[in-house]
Amino acid sequence: MPEQTKIQLDESEMPTRWYNLIPDLPEPPPPVLHPGTHEPVGPDDLAPLFPMDLILQEVSGERFIDIPETVQEIYRLWRPSPLYRARRLEKALDTPARIYYKYEGGSPAGSHKPNTAVAQAYYNAQAGVTKLTTETGAGQWGSALAFACAQFGLECEVWQVRASYDQKPYRRMMMETFGATIHPSPSEVTEAGRTILAEDPDSPGSLGIAISEAVEMAAGDEQTKYALGSVLNHVLLHQTVIGEEALLQMERAGETPDLLVGCTGGGSNFGGLCFPFIREKMAGKMAPEIRAVEPAACPTLTKGVYAYDFGDAIGMTPLMKMHTLGHDFVPDPIHAGGLRYHGMAPLISHVYELGLLEAEAVGQTACFEAGLQFARTEGIVPAPEPTHALAVAIEEAQACAESGEEKVILTALCGHGHFDLAAYDRYLSGEMENYAYPEAKVAEALSRIPAVG
Amino acid sequence: MPEQTKIQLDESEMPTRWYNLIPDLPEPPPPVLHPGTHEPVGPDDLAPLFPMDLILQEVSGERFIDIPETVQEIYRLWRPSPLYRARRLEKALDTPARIYYKYEGGSPAGSHKPNTAVAQAYYNAQAGVTKLTTETGAGQWGSALAFACAQFGLECEVWQVRASYDQKPYRRMMMETFGATIHPSPSEVTEAGRTILAEDPDSPGSLGIAISEAVEMAAGDEQTKYALGSVLNHVLLHQTVIGEEALLQMERAGETPDLLVGCTGGGSNFGGLCFPFIREKMAGKMAPEIRAVEPAACPTLTKGVYAYDFGDAIGMTPLMKMHTLGHDFVPDPIHAGGLRYHGMAPLISHVYELGLLEAEAVGQTACFEAGLQFARTEGIVPAPEPTHALAVAIEEAQACAESGEEKVILTALCGHGHFDLAAYDRYLSGEMENYAYPEAKVAEALSRIPAVG
Repeated sequence: MPEQTKIQLDESEMPTRWYNLIPDLPEPPPPVLHPGTHEPVGPDDLAPLFPMDLILQEVSGERFIDIPETVQEIYRLWRPSPLYRARRLEKALDTPARIYYKYEGGSPAGSHKPNTAVAQAYYNAQAGVTKLTTETGAGQWGSALAFACAQFGLECEVWQVRASYDQKPYRRMMMETFGATIHPSPSEVTEAGRTILAEDPDSPGSLGIAISEAVEMAAGDEQTKYALGSVLNHVLLHQTVIGEEALLQMERAGETPDLLVGCTGGGSNFGGLCFPFIREKMAGKMAPEIRAVEPAACPTLTKGVYAYDFGDAIGMTPLMKMHTLGHDFVPDPIHAGGLRYHGMAPLISHVYELGLLEAEAVGQTACFEAGLQFARTEGIVPAPEPTHALAVAIEEAQACAESGEEKVILTALCGHGHFDLAAYDRYLSGEMENYAYPEAKVAEALSRIPAVG
Repeated sequence: MPEQTKIQLDESEMPTRWYNLIPDLPEPPPPVLHPGTHEPVGPDDLAPLFPMDLILQEVSGERFIDIPETVQEIYRLWRPSPLYRARRLEKALDTPARIYYKYEGGSPAGSHKPNTAVAQAYYNAQAGVTKLTTETGAGQWGSALAFACAQFGLECEVWQVRASYDQKPYRRMMMETFGATIHPSPSEVTEAGRTILAEDPDSPGSLGIAISEAVEMAAGDEQTKYALGSVLNHVLLHQTVIGEEALLQMERAGETPDLLVGCTGGGSNFGGLCFPFIREKMAGKMAPEIRAVEPAACPTLTKGVYAYDFGDAIGMTPLMKMHTLGHDFVPDPIHAGGLRYHGMAPLISHVYELGLLEAEAVGQTACFEAGLQFARTEGIVPAPEPTHALAVAIEEAQACAESGEEKVILTALCGHGHFDLAAYDRYLSGEMENYAYPEAKVAEALSRIPAVG
């Protein structure tokens, strides 16, 4: 009997409920505060931007929330996603460790992002919304939302950071192929954009500016809402399909993980994989170490403070208690664009404070070294983001080669790197930067976070 | 019970044998001839370029050939590949037809090419070869071989047509990520390349020139062999894993196909899907119509002659009896680079002459229209090559919407279009050319095919 490489679930085994970690935690996360009054925000405060079903998920106390049939139907285009045993990588490392990876790159956008994009588009369509706006950097999230909107006949309007719009046209083309309209940000379409352009007609843009533009458009039209691809509770909730499937697949493989390792930017991929395992751990059914890996250039959990801060760079959003490097901190231009966020999902931050997970920061070149080894052995070129988790998984497996320990490692391979090959090219040519922790810049940004309570 | 979208096989159900159609045909295909003597070539004539195991597969009379364990082990990284029911496309077309597609885009190179690349690398490694050379246009085949060579510690040297090397760097980067060395062709590395460059230092190159360079390097070194990604019998043989899986998956779905439709360039993807179904059809077990779809700009089967011609542009290879537009015919620059071949696999040509399949040519814009509709409904952006088959599948399904016929259509989706988004961009901007059949150019090229027998 040959050794199995993939653990595939049948479509009938796909989760039918999302898992909400909050009610299982020993204490609830701190409330989100209004930026003006510093009082907790209520559902009505969020209603101009999000449909009520998503707002209620954001604050839900239910442990499980049913996934609508229509969302399940679309999930089945790529779910259940495969769990791989990395046999060829293990062999190359000559390690007794057993490495598993849960691969989300087979989705329409090539990452985990459609898991929430489809859900968000569904609830908006149900609420009679006709258009969604959003921001995107390199374009991972924008292409997920573009695909999702196409499924429900919603218009999709995306503000893409100008520098990425100009330098990486493939993601823009993918968004347009799925039917979305893309504006380079700053744009002439919004007041926010025009203001920036008046000051600097050549502005390369930033995620903060793009958020402002997308939010402005949504707030100004009854039929238009805004969608966010990470950070918020309901986004992490939708991503728990990853972890629920992985739990079942590990069981099917006859394995109990000793270590879960995932990359963290906003936190949705990491939370999606880990939350169901944290539930099992709290219930005493397993005892895996749970480790978040972040870039040395943007080390929110390992170097940030746990404080109330804005979600955007400009300071328009409600205040969230989270690990932050300061809302206007601009990280060095690492290739893992999805990890260049100044904060961390409030729920991940809270779980970290509760001592339910660990964190570690890794430099860029070590990540690409791991990505290259993974590509050559396993045949999948990973996106720069999950190479952070791979670097740690490989390091751990190497330690097992020394110690003889048969550690079971489970990692989240949240997307492919087909649109990131220029970064691999740079690494191969020996020109890649290995940005260190920008201590002074962080200290400066932290001096500007708002004083709350 | 929700409707199933994907029919997945377990790894234990993956074929363990390749299927050789030749012994099941009512008459054998014509022999391959030596370009000088016009006498049939023997195994020894091919030995400088290919290892003996592959040469024996090329001329085998066995119906089934065992797939080596090691090749199966690597196949399991992406095989069995999924069969999808295109429910969302069917709904958009409001058709009673049932459309299935066999998707090969989940492979390391994003197409069906690794099915043969891995097998070829294996047999070369077994024979003590240390390096493989090949040519590539846009880079699909080159990246498949680069991945395959990495699995066996073989060096991989690829000559990529200069125009593609310069214009489409992502595939080059993918080949390098897998560890290959890439030369733009014409190169200074070979006599053939130097000769061309002496005449024209700015030559954009061609597949014919790149073949000459790769063959020259292989012929000049005992430890180096050459690998070809389509056309030859052993390549089509390796691709039959596609059709064998699809047979089982259709059976699992409770379906018997009425129409099989695939795109044809060299013919390996089409043959891979169809040959096992042709076997079943000849055995009286089913009666599907089998249809090859080719580009209007390069309509080998529908407009070419069935004659002995060279496989390469320059006239170095043995003579093969096939449908050809003339060995030095250069098709217009359609985006489906994989379909720009002047000939057709001799085995597909022979099967066509036997009346076991039909052929049809489709224009470029109709293909991209189909590709766009497919992307927006099914969530996979198809490579330009398989959009030819999709265009016909959609047309047939539309006819069913008129007639009410519940036709069962099976199509080969041989790869994703992540590196072809610039072509979609061009289509969306309304600038795409719709090249017609170049009658005069073909007539001229056909006047130069060799006179044999």
